[in-house]
Amino acid sequence: MSTQNSFKLAVVGGDGIGPEVTAEALKVLDAVSANYGVTFERTEYDLGAKRWHATGETLPDAELEEIRKHDAILLGAVGDPTVPSGVLERGLLLKLRFALDHYVNLRPSKVYPSVGSPLANPGEVDFVVVREGTEGPYVGNGGALRVGTPAEIATEVSVNTAYGVERVVRDAFARAQARPRKKVTLVHKNNVLVYAGHLWKRTVDAVATEFPEIAVDYLHVDAATIFLVTDPARFDVIVTDNLFGDIITDLAAAISGGIGLAASGNINPDQTSPSMFEPVHGSAPDIAGQQKADPTAAILSTALLCDHLGLTEAAAAIEAAVTADIEERTSAPRTTAEIGDAIAKRAAG
Amino acid sequence: MSTQNSFKLAVVGGDGIGPEVTAEALKVLDAVSANYGVTFERTEYDLGAKRWHATGETLPDAELEEIRKHDAILLGAVGDPTVPSGVLERGLLLKLRFALDHYVNLRPSKVYPSVGSPLANPGEVDFVVVREGTEGPYVGNGGALRVGTPAEIATEVSVNTAYGVERVVRDAFARAQARPRKKVTLVHKNNVLVYAGHLWKRTVDAVATEFPEIAVDYLHVDAATIFLVTDPARFDVIVTDNLFGDIITDLAAAISGGIGLAASGNINPDQTSPSMFEPVHGSAPDIAGQQKADPTAAILSTALLCDHLGLTEAAAAIEAAVTADIEERTSAPRTTAEIGDAIAKRAAG
Ligand SMILES: CC(C)[C@H](C(=O)O)[C@@H](O)C(=O)O
Ligand SMILES: CC(C)[C@H](C(=O)O)[C@@H](O)C(=O)O
Repeated sequence: MSTQNSFKLAVVGGDGIGPEVTAEALKVLDAVSANYGVTFERTEYDLGAKRWHATGETLPDAELEEIRKHDAILLGAVGDPTVPSGVLERGLLLKLRFALDHYVNLRPSKVYPSVGSPLANPGEVDFVVVREGTEGPYVGNGGALRVGTPAEIATEVSVNTAYGVERVVRDAFARAQARPRKKVTLVHKNNVLVYAGHLWKRTVDAVATEFPEIAVDYLHVDAATIFLVTDPARFDVIVTDNLFGDIITDLAAAISGGIGLAASGNINPDQTSPSMFEPVHGSAPDIAGQQKADPTAAILSTALLCDHLGLTEAAAAIEAAVTADIEERTSAPRTTAEIGDAIAKRAAG
Repeated sequence: MSTQNSFKLAVVGGDGIGPEVTAEALKVLDAVSANYGVTFERTEYDLGAKRWHATGETLPDAELEEIRKHDAILLGAVGDPTVPSGVLERGLLLKLRFALDHYVNLRPSKVYPSVGSPLANPGEVDFVVVREGTEGPYVGNGGALRVGTPAEIATEVSVNTAYGVERVVRDAFARAQARPRKKVTLVHKNNVLVYAGHLWKRTVDAVATEFPEIAVDYLHVDAATIFLVTDPARFDVIVTDNLFGDIITDLAAAISGGIGLAASGNINPDQTSPSMFEPVHGSAPDIAGQQKADPTAAILSTALLCDHLGLTEAAAAIEAAVTADIEERTSAPRTTAEIGDAIAKRAAG
């Protein structure tokens, strides 16, 4: 248990449905924290498409340094069709993940018995993806020549280091050690991306010797997508690179009840900077501002946030409130705020 | 219709279940070609793990030049656990695809009504993935420094050219034009891989102006995996890069009845070198040599082969024979050869 009882929380609602779902997540966080004698002192940061249109800024360094002073960050969503693709993603979301060294992008998947899965027989799905968050093809190390001509060439460089791979692999094994299934599956493509793939494979094999209780498995990313559909219950902890992790966690969300339930933490396990919690879903601009979005993923992200801050009981209370709400869901539509209110009420106890 | 009536076919059974499934595919090809007054003159190439162990060779250039003289290639599977990962894949399979300029890697997906899908409600699945085959992260343009030390760094470079992207995009649009749904979906990740992603997006937008009847859609690869699970019937022609295509075609196979049915063509549309046809599944070493593999994907690959050679009636006959066989499948197990015999018998008419 944490002994700290006041936390500084930076809130970045962001684009599209981001502000709506974070509003509900904060409602639930307040309801729960009151019960545990904890307060969250919030600072909202106006970042995203509106800010960029008004000022041309995505995330000025001074603001990044302000955000860095918080205990944690709650983020809604980043991305808007009125902004060239990549500007906000690279300039805001990835800038936060990289600058704050969020090397563990944690994405749990679980099928709630009462929620439908598009799979006919999903089985006992309960795994977590440990997606590397600071390397791989996400480093922004690419370029283009002769743009717009028939001789254009564009490159993207995936950068992988022993330093970066080992720390995230070690985190994955430590998580597996604390879970009942005790299994780590490395997902990569080491039969084609031989340089990066062999670094990952060798690192997993080396770290595995320190965790004799953990079963270790390797799957090519293409084969992993098959098993996520035909036998998702086989997974426990999946460790993988930034891009493969991006792809398979959306698939994982889809098979386990939908992107409306998928929470994530961008974690700096060394606690040298604040970790950031966000729903896996995007900004969904088509339904933004209409109170149609499901805030559950954002709410579950605050459970991960509490857990990270050592508030394990608060985390459990949020999860229990969400589970209870999900179990009683009917086909009757509810607004974003109605879902938030219902979960906050349960969470308050 | 083709007027040629004798074709030179290079056969590379390869590893694991490859030789078994190609044997059945050839059986069916012979049964059908007899009916259409066509013959396939075969040359078998002993390539793969056994050859590598014996000689250290994957695909010597002289042999590649021999293979090049054929009208088409039938390939089983490449990859074996006794060979370091990547050696055969890069040295044999990818060497063929790159050297023979197979820039269209064609992978159709269709749900056969009588075959189960792991999805509860797959809907009317009938799409084709046009996967780029000669660029992207598959170019082998990477490296590693200080291997095996804590200071190791490994890179993988994705190379994309206007030349390479435009020709495959044009092929995708031409295919969509000939299909009833008339839709092209570009799958990429242009909010992160901005250099390559923008080249792809601009190219699709430019080529689209020449195809006013075709509806155009864009999906990030992560979102595409969600739709492949929740609404696969929305797709018609998907065009994507080499790595994203690798990933989503395995997923596509999984949702549409399994990897046992997924056929593919590595096509050189300019006919400057022979195209190569192969099942999407791998070498499955765990069941190799046991007559347990389903040869259907290899057999369907010969339908794509016939189609490519202008033998459209023969292609249709193979597909019809497979469809009829699939419709009468029971849970009773059949050997690889039994399935091949049954389909060959139907195909002979
Ligand atoms: C918005 C985008 C940059 C982001 C990513 O690719 O990481 C998102 O898809 C995610 O998974 O959090
Ligand atoms: C075996 C491997 C190199 C190959 C690929 O990645 O292209 C396979 O997965 C495929 O899809 O044909």
